[in-house]
Amino acid sequence: MGTAVAWPLSDNGHQVRLVGTHLDNEIIASCLEKGWHPRLRRQLPNNVRPYYVEQLAEALEGVNVIVSGVSSPGVRWIGRTLAPHVKPGMKIIAVTKGLEASAEGHLRILPDVLADELPPAVRGQVSLAAIGGPCIAGELAGRRQTCVYFTSRDAAALPVLRQLFKTPYYHISLSTDVVGVEVCVALKNAYTLAVGLAGGMLDRLGGPDAADAWNHNPAAALFGASAREMARLVSLLGGNPAMVTSLPGVGDQYVTCMGGRTVRLGRLLGKGMSYEEARAEMAGETLESALVVAQIARALPGLEARGLLGRDELPLMRCLCRVISGNAPVEVDFGRLFPDDVK
Amino acid sequence: MGTAVAWPLSDNGHQVRLVGTHLDNEIIASCLEKGWHPRLRRQLPNNVRPYYVEQLAEALEGVNVIVSGVSSPGVRWIGRTLAPHVKPGMKIIAVTKGLEASAEGHLRILPDVLADELPPAVRGQVSLAAIGGPCIAGELAGRRQTCVYFTSRDAAALPVLRQLFKTPYYHISLSTDVVGVEVCVALKNAYTLAVGLAGGMLDRLGGPDAADAWNHNPAAALFGASAREMARLVSLLGGNPAMVTSLPGVGDQYVTCMGGRTVRLGRLLGKGMSYEEARAEMAGETLESALVVAQIARALPGLEARGLLGRDELPLMRCLCRVISGNAPVEVDFGRLFPDDVK
Repeated sequence: MGTAVAWPLSDNGHQVRLVGTHLDNEIIASCLEKGWHPRLRRQLPNNVRPYYVEQLAEALEGVNVIVSGVSSPGVRWIGRTLAPHVKPGMKIIAVTKGLEASAEGHLRILPDVLADELPPAVRGQVSLAAIGGPCIAGELAGRRQTCVYFTSRDAAALPVLRQLFKTPYYHISLSTDVVGVEVCVALKNAYTLAVGLAGGMLDRLGGPDAADAWNHNPAAALFGASAREMARLVSLLGGNPAMVTSLPGVGDQYVTCMGGRTVRLGRLLGKGMSYEEARAEMAGETLESALVVAQIARALPGLEARGLLGRDELPLMRCLCRVISGNAPVEVDFGRLFPDDVK
Repeated sequence: MGTAVAWPLSDNGHQVRLVGTHLDNEIIASCLEKGWHPRLRRQLPNNVRPYYVEQLAEALEGVNVIVSGVSSPGVRWIGRTLAPHVKPGMKIIAVTKGLEASAEGHLRILPDVLADELPPAVRGQVSLAAIGGPCIAGELAGRRQTCVYFTSRDAAALPVLRQLFKTPYYHISLSTDVVGVEVCVALKNAYTLAVGLAGGMLDRLGGPDAADAWNHNPAAALFGASAREMARLVSLLGGNPAMVTSLPGVGDQYVTCMGGRTVRLGRLLGKGMSYEEARAEMAGETLESALVVAQIARALPGLEARGLLGRDELPLMRCLCRVISGNAPVEVDFGRLFPDDVK
């Protein structure tokens, strides 16, 4: 995803320096030798120069904007790694999706976690922003119509960033509701895992029956419950729940449900595998969805102790927490997902 | 769908009388001769007795609850047809999804339209209810886990109805927000048409490219915009927009996007066909999605004239209205679907 934004930037005539982490050496080598990005399966666009992580200082020389595309476990690392090079006035925009639970059970959004690692003197002089919304990297690189939100507490930075990135296929809306956007995009990974369970439950039933009944009804119930719980969590953490009925919430969850590793993990779990077994089956893949669930599982006791959340709230997330953090089998109580509003 | 609820009712030991309309004579003949429902491709469950429409009086003898499963253009017909047989204390629960615009531009929900056709003397002594939420008929008949809302202004009738229908696979939540549920389930047909456009736009591009980029990003943007506009319309018509972030809104839209005639119609339109051409291509199929859009197109001028809706609101619905009611080509302005919340 970090690489995919090179397409709109390049189309706008900007110089892009693409720096791999130490895990990306093969990708960078291919980019340098053949201009070919093996994961995206595309030639890099014009104006993109690849760098190994050891060349970071050189790559960051004179840049205006840093796009951070690490996965969520890499956020503190990227903060520490950038720290010596960050200069006042720079803008950092992140595509990483996740949440971090503190020991006391506070859930924090990742731009704030990244900021922790910057030197205090420069921290207030850098604009931190994030990108949220449904965007499959390969489709952005294929110049498909894509809508996203750019979000930052620094309202003045947002139009500047949009100007750099926007193209006739990359449509950018702006919001200062960083918590709303970031909580939505983190949760959609967790809740897509829930929707994915339905596919595994169908496997367990032996697949579609003779009359071709699949398992879309339970998947849709799980999708609806996801939206409901997402709105509750966004409100609880101080964001605007209207973000859920929009691009970063159900829009992003919709695209995530269309396939990929989160759906695959959900299917394995729904089929009856324990999380440990499923993780072994998917060894080597970063399972952002499970990481988010684990962070929420850590935060739940604190949220309850502070009286912010009732014990009967978020039944679907609690089911996911038992599966991911308790290695329990999947047991969705479909009868408890939606409340009555009459006695 | 009207037939599919026979499965939970039969499983609960109730006697079910299945009455076809004049369009269903072949289905009823098959049900009578072989106990086989050709559309659902299943043997009918126990306790279900099929009737032709001419036998309606006999079929309604002594019944407690009528389930109406007609399509939206049949709602006034079913009201008139039932009128002579309806007795005080009966309950009518409808699965029909749609809206009706009055000449003055008021949008009405279908249970109210059905009530219009009942004799005034009996109207107030009958409970009218509706079922909303993601439910593919063939999956309910296949006893897949299914969650729905039963809704009625008659709060006392709701637990009674639930008791009749609920099974370990058919989970029923209750709500008196009839407008919220009914507007959601009508709009999800209209907005699924919008999501379906993305598939046709991909066809127009020649399908997935060499790097296997599909068109999920635009589909997800359209899904997110749908939720946003659905919440606006539910509020405007007096329902609770929380229904959108739940089962009747995005839950039902999710399942509708998984396939079927609405997605097919959207794809034809997205590919470049006019609505007239697409309708000819799909001759013989009831296009509920287009019917809902046409009703909203009729209502928009009145809603604006009464100051309830701004001219720049609902950009996606307005696009659909131009296509369906104006026979215009599809032109989605992706850059206008989501607002900034900063200057």
